[in-house]
Amino acid sequence: MQRHFDEELKQLRDRLLAMGGASEQIVGKAVKALVERNLALAQEVLREDTAINQMEVEIEDLCLNLMARYQPEAKDLRTVAMIFKIVNDLERVGDQAVNIAERTVDLLKEPLLKPLIDIPRMAALAQQMLKDALDAFVNHNTEMARDVCRRDEQVDHLNDQIYKELLVFMTQDPKTIIRAMDLILVGRHLERVADHATNIAEDVYYLVKGTTIKHRLAGN
Amino acid sequence: MQRHFDEELKQLRDRLLAMGGASEQIVGKAVKALVERNLALAQEVLREDTAINQMEVEIEDLCLNLMARYQPEAKDLRTVAMIFKIVNDLERVGDQAVNIAERTVDLLKEPLLKPLIDIPRMAALAQQMLKDALDAFVNHNTEMARDVCRRDEQVDHLNDQIYKELLVFMTQDPKTIIRAMDLILVGRHLERVADHATNIAEDVYYLVKGTTIKHRLAGN
Repeated sequence: MQRHFDEELKQLRDRLLAMGGASEQIVGKAVKALVERNLALAQEVLREDTAINQMEVEIEDLCLNLMARYQPEAKDLRTVAMIFKIVNDLERVGDQAVNIAERTVDLLKEPLLKPLIDIPRMAALAQQMLKDALDAFVNHNTEMARDVCRRDEQVDHLNDQIYKELLVFMTQDPKTIIRAMDLILVGRHLERVADHATNIAEDVYYLVKGTTIKHRLAGN
Repeated sequence: MQRHFDEELKQLRDRLLAMGGASEQIVGKAVKALVERNLALAQEVLREDTAINQMEVEIEDLCLNLMARYQPEAKDLRTVAMIFKIVNDLERVGDQAVNIAERTVDLLKEPLLKPLIDIPRMAALAQQMLKDALDAFVNHNTEMARDVCRRDEQVDHLNDQIYKELLVFMTQDPKTIIRAMDLILVGRHLERVADHATNIAEDVYYLVKGTTIKHRLAGN
């Protein structure tokens, strides 16, 4: 019985990681579309999010199914429950990528406001946090989970910087306002991707240690 | 055994409703602080969110505890799993109230930009959606759940309106930019409160019907 459960849990974990990979990549694609001013790529993001949404529904069902059939206890139960939570964060990461792609579609109607440097940097940080949070989950690595939570501050800091820089544009030339607003929102969407990675890392910490670092290290 | 489970599930549901009430009220309080320019009230929001965060941790533990001790099946399992999900949305509603309170603290440093009409209207809609989503949960009312999802569009529409109106301010007078930005963000935070209510309503629909309306009716 336990062997069968372990086998199915492994499959469930693989599905989760596949969804994690898809969520991380869709964020990268959305930001690539923005930086390279590639409308077709932005539209691809909108389509691909549907697949991520579908993965969430499927993995949730698998979790409930696994719980119903094996009635796992203690740590096994917590693991399944955490997967159930994590897919929710991953699905919302996909939503953020869609938001970025929508802003991109708008931005491409206007000339480039400025070369984008901090936004791709912020995206790279958030994507790495997401990867590491899932790695921490797989390897029950609380040190890495803590580290992901810590990095959330760097992302917040970059976001503030982006905000302040764009505010200068807006104040100096009202013609830049709409574009600057769109870029500010992209910054916020990326900040939320990092928040979701942080949520996952907090859950991993809780899963392994049985105590929460939630709402202490990182209050998003 | 089932009687004991039912009794504990009832207590769990009551805790969830208490948390729902607290989340709905904290949004109201944040917007009241903004409209009445009441700094002390905004600061109260920041403190009260801590209690909501605490409730999330407690209810999650109760859910896992209940699952471990009773190993519920079918509908009972789904109910507990849904409570586990809903508290996550409620916690994030509290975070949105904090975001609004933070924007309010900034806004109170400057003179009033304009009397606020659409923002309190949007808040009232989002709060009612939250209430109704939880009512739909308690009464297994799929019609109400569907209705909550439908109302999400009204909130989105109001948010667009707020955005466009404030854009005019910004374009006409750069001195209004920072305040207008803050108000635009408040609009987005309220939009997200409505999104969380919609998520809950979608979950209720799924719980009762066993099929999802997610990502069909409302794509947030």
